[in-house]
Amino acid sequence: MTAKNIMLTPGPTPLPPSVLEAMSRPLIHHRTAEFGRMFVSVIEDMQFVYRTKGTVLMMTTSGTGAMESAVINLLSPGDLTIVCTTGAFGDRFVNIHKAFGLKPVVLPFEWGTAINPETLRAALKENKGVKAVFMQHTDTSTGVLNDIKTLSKIVHEESDALVVVDSVSGLACEPLETDAWGLDCVVTGSQKGLMNAPGLGFAAVSEKAWKAVEVSKLPKFNFDYKLIRKSLADKETPWTPAISIVAGQAAALKMLRAEGMEACWKRHDDLAAHARKLLTEKLGLPFYSKNPANILTGVVLPAGVDGTKLLSDILKEEGISIAGGQLHLKGKIFRLAHMGYISKSDIDAGVDALAKRLVGVKA
Amino acid sequence: MTAKNIMLTPGPTPLPPSVLEAMSRPLIHHRTAEFGRMFVSVIEDMQFVYRTKGTVLMMTTSGTGAMESAVINLLSPGDLTIVCTTGAFGDRFVNIHKAFGLKPVVLPFEWGTAINPETLRAALKENKGVKAVFMQHTDTSTGVLNDIKTLSKIVHEESDALVVVDSVSGLACEPLETDAWGLDCVVTGSQKGLMNAPGLGFAAVSEKAWKAVEVSKLPKFNFDYKLIRKSLADKETPWTPAISIVAGQAAALKMLRAEGMEACWKRHDDLAAHARKLLTEKLGLPFYSKNPANILTGVVLPAGVDGTKLLSDILKEEGISIAGGQLHLKGKIFRLAHMGYISKSDIDAGVDALAKRLVGVKA
Repeated sequence: MTAKNIMLTPGPTPLPPSVLEAMSRPLIHHRTAEFGRMFVSVIEDMQFVYRTKGTVLMMTTSGTGAMESAVINLLSPGDLTIVCTTGAFGDRFVNIHKAFGLKPVVLPFEWGTAINPETLRAALKENKGVKAVFMQHTDTSTGVLNDIKTLSKIVHEESDALVVVDSVSGLACEPLETDAWGLDCVVTGSQKGLMNAPGLGFAAVSEKAWKAVEVSKLPKFNFDYKLIRKSLADKETPWTPAISIVAGQAAALKMLRAEGMEACWKRHDDLAAHARKLLTEKLGLPFYSKNPANILTGVVLPAGVDGTKLLSDILKEEGISIAGGQLHLKGKIFRLAHMGYISKSDIDAGVDALAKRLVGVKA
Repeated sequence: MTAKNIMLTPGPTPLPPSVLEAMSRPLIHHRTAEFGRMFVSVIEDMQFVYRTKGTVLMMTTSGTGAMESAVINLLSPGDLTIVCTTGAFGDRFVNIHKAFGLKPVVLPFEWGTAINPETLRAALKENKGVKAVFMQHTDTSTGVLNDIKTLSKIVHEESDALVVVDSVSGLACEPLETDAWGLDCVVTGSQKGLMNAPGLGFAAVSEKAWKAVEVSKLPKFNFDYKLIRKSLADKETPWTPAISIVAGQAAALKMLRAEGMEACWKRHDDLAAHARKLLTEKLGLPFYSKNPANILTGVVLPAGVDGTKLLSDILKEEGISIAGGQLHLKGKIFRLAHMGYISKSDIDAGVDALAKRLVGVKA
């Protein structure tokens, strides 16, 4: 008998039964009233999750595609931007900028630390005319939580720039108030806190951001926010959407609606606390991040341990997926996720599997 | 009791039970050997369907996204191209070109007629230095079949241009020989002949096309063929893929492998003949296209009939989805699909529903 597949990875995360059931239903055509109703429910429920009365757009793509969509819809060649980077996903925003010929001012922060608000303030004072500031809500590569509320306040105090937030791994796991915090564009993906299969990207777009979209001159077609908004008025998408994943998203969002966002954030808070208590008791290894988010816990492995082999063994022998470190952290840390539909018993199984193999080396 | 949902639409098409089952399985993580094996099987089976030994790339996107990916990966600003257009999807290639600042030579053919090979030859003689010629294998808006083999031969005789084919609705429904016909880039989507849910785009890329990719200067990141090929070597995708839809595609492709491409084309041939015989007998209305593909039959409605209401009634009252005309054909034709997992009994139910409502007006 194959071991039960337990995913403790920071995206994709496990799927609730109702989501799997929704995806297994025969397709409905996307130019029908029935699809329109489902699609509108997804958009409205996403406004609920985003805490916005503004427009929410849906795209068939990955989180990376959603990130790209923000860059190419808000900016024009020559625009000055600031990209704050706290890990692999901040670097991805930089790479997207470069791919489209933009030369952002990059504010790098040491991996494992959060964006320093005063560093951002100084950069805004130094660079006048910044069109947009890009930041991660949480960076999945390090598990760091950035103080988006404070950072957004500083951007608005010091400039007229748009605040663009990658909340691919943060949304629904950590408090985020799109409207109340003055966030202009918040992008996310379906496969983390939203408890759905990967395949959908979303963008919440403020009125101020729409003004930038109107004059943006970077080239786009597939991700053109204006075309997507136009179709949304007809309860449609401009191109054939990933209908099954939309059905899964509708089911997952019903669960989040029923739970409520405060309770959802509290659930992640509790789950993170549970994981960290257990990791401390059973492993006693140092945590990687200074300001950890409730999405995952990064744990530094002892020098002699081959982290890649450790996690590969656990997957092979016990069917439990745990993520390793990315780039220079490969083999050196593991990232135990506690987001979305991950349960306490999943965490317990994961920590047990780790403890069994790290006993003796932990001292 | 709700009527059985029958989809006679030219994408998405109905899903086989094994595809629905595959999509309802708990997710596996996309950075695992298990996913790698599934992904490689999809790529290899797609080579089988495409009839190519060349590279096949997979993207999480719609057919439109796959079309865009070909334009932005093969071309640079200022490149001269020819776009042959036989309907809405040829026009879409033109719009993608324009969105990226390209000014293609457009060869429009009357809706319902195929690309005239000699018109293309004359255009190639007149326009020297063309980098690529774009064409639809079948245009879903009209159901027309283009003679890709002949057209590709002419392009290679008259120029050094790449042959770029949109086979989103044609692949697996009509013969297509990527290598034998010298096609340089063939894009498709998962939701038509490939019998899967929408959400995946594919591109078959020839060696000659890769040379163009290497020097292409149009901006891209999410759809960057070089990044996608690099990850493919590691049995991965650069960004999180739509894992459930990949599982569905693997299951659907197993069916096509077992059937064989010749038998699959024959099945579509038989199904189209069945549909047209029945439509002639029961409706007796004129067909729209001069050179119809086996993907669908466009039928011209009598002047007094409101096609939009007709199809909306059939969907509401009998649960059968049939597509109407697009753009200027809205309300004037219907498009009865016979592609992918659509069966004879589905066709029979659709034609019955149409005949019931068109009796008396058909004379």
